[in-house]
Amino acid sequence: MTKFGLALAATLSATAPAQAEDGYDLWLRHAPLPTAQRLAVDPYAGCVAAAQRATQVTIAIAAREIESAIDAMTDKAAPRDCTASAAAAAPSHGVMIGTRDDPAIAALGLPLAKAGDEGFVIRSIERDGRKLIVVAANRPVGVLYGAFALLRELQTGTAIDALDVTEQPKVDLRLLNHWDNLDRTVERGYSGQSIWDWWKLPDVNDPRYTDYARANASIGINGAVLNNVNAKPDSMTAPWIAKAAAVADVLRPYGIKVYLSARWSTPVELKQTTTADPLDPAVAAWWKAKADEIYAAIPDFGGFLVKANSEGQPGPQDYKRTHAEGANMLAAAVKPHGGIVMWRAFVYSEADPDDRAKQAYADFKPLDGKFADNVIVQVKNGAIDFQPREPFHPMFGTMPKTPLMMEFQITKEYLGFATHLAYLAPMYEEVLDADTFAKGKGSTVAEVIDGSLEGHKLNGMAGVANIGSDRNWSGSIFDQANWYAFGRLAWDHQLSSDAIAREWAKQTFTPDPAFVQPVTAMMMGSRETVVDYMTPMGLAHLMATGHHYGPGPWVSDLARPEWNPVYYHRADKDGIGFDRTASGSNAVAQYMPQVARGFASRRSVDDKDLLWFHHVGWDEKMKSGRTLWAELLHRYDRGVAGVGDMQARWATLKPFVDAPRFEEVTRFLAIQQREAIWWRDASIAYFASVSGRALPTGVQPPAHDLEYYKAIEHSYAPGHH
Amino acid sequence: MTKFGLALAATLSATAPAQAEDGYDLWLRHAPLPTAQRLAVDPYAGCVAAAQRATQVTIAIAAREIESAIDAMTDKAAPRDCTASAAAAAPSHGVMIGTRDDPAIAALGLPLAKAGDEGFVIRSIERDGRKLIVVAANRPVGVLYGAFALLRELQTGTAIDALDVTEQPKVDLRLLNHWDNLDRTVERGYSGQSIWDWWKLPDVNDPRYTDYARANASIGINGAVLNNVNAKPDSMTAPWIAKAAAVADVLRPYGIKVYLSARWSTPVELKQTTTADPLDPAVAAWWKAKADEIYAAIPDFGGFLVKANSEGQPGPQDYKRTHAEGANMLAAAVKPHGGIVMWRAFVYSEADPDDRAKQAYADFKPLDGKFADNVIVQVKNGAIDFQPREPFHPMFGTMPKTPLMMEFQITKEYLGFATHLAYLAPMYEEVLDADTFAKGKGSTVAEVIDGSLEGHKLNGMAGVANIGSDRNWSGSIFDQANWYAFGRLAWDHQLSSDAIAREWAKQTFTPDPAFVQPVTAMMMGSRETVVDYMTPMGLAHLMATGHHYGPGPWVSDLARPEWNPVYYHRADKDGIGFDRTASGSNAVAQYMPQVARGFASRRSVDDKDLLWFHHVGWDEKMKSGRTLWAELLHRYDRGVAGVGDMQARWATLKPFVDAPRFEEVTRFLAIQQREAIWWRDASIAYFASVSGRALPTGVQPPAHDLEYYKAIEHSYAPGHH
Repeated sequence: MTKFGLALAATLSATAPAQAEDGYDLWLRHAPLPTAQRLAVDPYAGCVAAAQRATQVTIAIAAREIESAIDAMTDKAAPRDCTASAAAAAPSHGVMIGTRDDPAIAALGLPLAKAGDEGFVIRSIERDGRKLIVVAANRPVGVLYGAFALLRELQTGTAIDALDVTEQPKVDLRLLNHWDNLDRTVERGYSGQSIWDWWKLPDVNDPRYTDYARANASIGINGAVLNNVNAKPDSMTAPWIAKAAAVADVLRPYGIKVYLSARWSTPVELKQTTTADPLDPAVAAWWKAKADEIYAAIPDFGGFLVKANSEGQPGPQDYKRTHAEGANMLAAAVKPHGGIVMWRAFVYSEADPDDRAKQAYADFKPLDGKFADNVIVQVKNGAIDFQPREPFHPMFGTMPKTPLMMEFQITKEYLGFATHLAYLAPMYEEVLDADTFAKGKGSTVAEVIDGSLEGHKLNGMAGVANIGSDRNWSGSIFDQANWYAFGRLAWDHQLSSDAIAREWAKQTFTPDPAFVQPVTAMMMGSRETVVDYMTPMGLAHLMATGHHYGPGPWVSDLARPEWNPVYYHRADKDGIGFDRTASGSNAVAQYMPQVARGFASRRSVDDKDLLWFHHVGWDEKMKSGRTLWAELLHRYDRGVAGVGDMQARWATLKPFVDAPRFEEVTRFLAIQQREAIWWRDASIAYFASVSGRALPTGVQPPAHDLEYYKAIEHSYAPGHH
Repeated sequence: MTKFGLALAATLSATAPAQAEDGYDLWLRHAPLPTAQRLAVDPYAGCVAAAQRATQVTIAIAAREIESAIDAMTDKAAPRDCTASAAAAAPSHGVMIGTRDDPAIAALGLPLAKAGDEGFVIRSIERDGRKLIVVAANRPVGVLYGAFALLRELQTGTAIDALDVTEQPKVDLRLLNHWDNLDRTVERGYSGQSIWDWWKLPDVNDPRYTDYARANASIGINGAVLNNVNAKPDSMTAPWIAKAAAVADVLRPYGIKVYLSARWSTPVELKQTTTADPLDPAVAAWWKAKADEIYAAIPDFGGFLVKANSEGQPGPQDYKRTHAEGANMLAAAVKPHGGIVMWRAFVYSEADPDDRAKQAYADFKPLDGKFADNVIVQVKNGAIDFQPREPFHPMFGTMPKTPLMMEFQITKEYLGFATHLAYLAPMYEEVLDADTFAKGKGSTVAEVIDGSLEGHKLNGMAGVANIGSDRNWSGSIFDQANWYAFGRLAWDHQLSSDAIAREWAKQTFTPDPAFVQPVTAMMMGSRETVVDYMTPMGLAHLMATGHHYGPGPWVSDLARPEWNPVYYHRADKDGIGFDRTASGSNAVAQYMPQVARGFASRRSVDDKDLLWFHHVGWDEKMKSGRTLWAELLHRYDRGVAGVGDMQARWATLKPFVDAPRFEEVTRFLAIQQREAIWWRDASIAYFASVSGRALPTGVQPPAHDLEYYKAIEHSYAPGHH
């Protein structure tokens, strides 16, 4: 029987339009296909021919995924037992999967050279009078990726006898970064506890780890950093290595490697060395032995992720060594095992009075070319910190001799946590498509991080995960789309955010165009809506401090200057914005000259980035013809209206969505609506007080005075420690 | 379709004996009945006749519960829509439910006088040629309780045409105490986060709250204290009252009232009074207004639970007022609304050098008769703190003029958290059946707390909940039995723990006697097994400090003496145990004389309580003929062997249990086995070092030396803050 609460809910609601769901199945629901398509797929149902099933666990998994999904899509109730069988379904139709080592696959002469190590070929063929769907690859993981791709094609409406797909990923390291603490809290986690039940590991592998692996494999993610970048020394001790190894054992058949965040001072804190100086032989020897110990437990361990000399974390600079010296020492430890080091560039110092946005570049640019060949530097998409909008990070395109890895944030630390709807793929896409001009026009950030621009073999994309113990994984149904989109873009950064939204919506809800079109439109505008009501026109980091929930543009009393929102907006009676041109911090000079000129010029800079780069008078005219003050007000209002539009649109979609998921989204949108108004009103009240500007006629005044907004506190906000 | 992980698991395991389950359905699975019984029940399937369905939501819920459960038990796949219909199922058979206000029910002349306010009558009758099952009660909640009782009868094998049950609860307040913090952590919680997603309340009521209400109603629980007894002032502010009210709205139709823990110093901390002196009129006025505010939001609010002057919590003694003065001031605030105050007796002071076990009695005994009539004093089952075994608390039977409420702990703070299997009903039963001799022989603790002994109208039983966000609610399948048993005993303390185990096992797994008999035997012995390997023969509080996980009998360096395990065992080279007789702390004198004599006499005291009351020489002979040292060793070994027996027994039950639940229990038992050995070895190593005694021939020496065990640390243990 179905889960009891849902069963009761369904019984109580006489008009439930679809079977109650709780979001656990993500985009892998494999709902029954529309009739015409179901009839076409039906003859393929049955046991998949997979000669390598018995010898390759990954092939066996791929075969079962296809079998059970096609059964579900064609509404066959009872799962069949194909364990011992490699027989195809019907005499006339079948599905066959395998690698090039399977003679039956090899005999087909498919273009496997184009599939690479992780890619696949899917093709509808006829052979000996049978209609066959073939999923072929060079390695078993490619077959698994191909299996999930096949199911995606079917679920999104591709005709089963017209399949012809050859793919390989554009980026090699497609990683989730879990900021998961050892006490099972999650830094910036808004979806319950850590998925890793450390306390019960390694004895108990929660079945959910397997479902996690499936979901990730279905979108091509091939690595997971299990623990928070703000790491504890414990993670490097034997009991915790055993826990990581137990997780690795579950993830391995799904092509996912385990990585660990390493705390720089670990050997000192474990009292096993007296220093963490990377040039001290005892330190290097300790890490070498530690790497050997980890690889003994996890033979395919991926390597280390390091946050060093950043926000109070220790690092090589504590010993007057560079980031490169630190990274290279660790890299030498994992090198014999094929491991890598991902060294984060997210650094800024309370001792450095210069513009925070400039500090990572300043630290790392002189080190270009000094990193070992198994080090990759992991750079956030923007120079501050995962804001609703930031211009691309100036390190992209200016560090030609160093492989750079993208760090996106999937969890919505600065975008309203789980209850504000914001589809992030347009934000990712905006950065990936940005032109660095590193090798002339068209040198996109995507080409930097996929290694193609400078020919780097190491290349990758990391996303700070939004996955937790919540039943729906991500805290909200629509936040599942951000996980999905991150994986899809890591696989292929040329996919459009719109196309990704469409395929996600089809799989997560229904392929009915009457649903897909409006929901996609709603998703596509959602992030810009958040920008509008939180930080329009290049404003940034105006959130309440600490937990980053709600507006706090007035905060000015924190110890470090760059912790205060006033540091970022610099509003005074004359104007607002951070002058990063030559007359100010000159951060623009860190970009290639063409880019720098574009940002530095008031004529060419886009309004969306205006206040990031310029301090602008309140009464200056914008491109719209409005004054800056009026334009800001306009955008706040547009943000609030945008949420109202989402509510109205979602309400029309009720016939397509099961009751529990419809209700959850409805409730969350109501929160977002109320809080968009809060953001608008608090921001307007504050900026009016600073600027001394009155509200033009027709602009709704804030519901309360500024003191009211300043007094709002959100104790016990999730994700903050 | 079923949830994807489970679906895949089922597909991969060709020999899964039962459909995969994740424990979410608790004891309300309503699995298909055995064939003969299903044929008997089948004619009753259909829409329940419930004339009050349209006007009484509780009746509507009861009707739907019966309809959907009988559908499930008789394997009818599609739920029917009975919303608009009150028609019975078949012309020949039917189920009819309602209160005495329903003329059709009233006409039956059932013995509703015996059902009281919350009870019910269930009867199989024939009327106008139809076979009817009737569930009748005086109030709607009685109908709901009766509905769940009917389903329990059916699921556990009672013949449907022989039903004749009249019940009412023996205790009025049947409450869960949630030690749930506002940041969603749970003090002593081992099943994930708090079930209360405070952050999203009051906007979002997790559907799980409804399932929580159902589960509790099914065992008769009628109140929930939502927040930790270590309370924050925030809980009394408007935003948090709104959150509690939203939960109350969900629980209300299920007969469950919401209560809140109140922090004594709340008005001072909120800066609304300058003192928390209970005799200060401003303080009383503040609480009166606060009560009015709460009742405006929650008209049936139950009242306050207070932990005062206990473990650092503020209280009336800070102002030289008594517990009674404090409780009565709060009681006056809720009195006009019909609310109550539950005042905890769990007090002990670092400033009091006397035996900690004596301090609650010493504080409260002088106050007997001084509490207002809407105050009930909540007393833990034993005088220390929820140990695997404690003699009953000396306040029971010695406070005749004061209503006393039982506080049991359901969450296993001192019994191995979620991964050690310990069925606690025998422990509850042991205390409830203990004889206080308050009014001569046979004056049981149960009669104290049900109010019958002294004729108290206020009476109750509270259990510290083991419920969290884990999918299986309680952290383990068998810990669900402790929740279940607590509810059942609160309803009827005369039920045997064995009978409760049987009915739980039948509903949670299968009614097959080949399963029920061995699993019940396993459960029944499990708590004694934990006592054996942790704290045999009356030892107590030897757990590692802070989180209370694993052995720490050697700990002696904590600031407060009674925080140290050595305080409790008092082992030295000559002997072990806490002399609580006249030659020692004379705690025995707090009991009635007959009880005191029994505990004080080495001849009459049971070995199970020996070292609680006596300091005994290592070489003294026990009733078994062994020396104390040998007897202790014997019991440690028996504890380890007991876990081995559970493992062996569970292994034989595989054919009866679905794969995921079988596997979870198997894994947890493996942890328990390893840790039982850890407990035994560490305890023996320590006591051997203190006593200087060698191990007799044949006794397995500890695997490691004492220093090894002392060095074990469990950082990041759950449930500790």
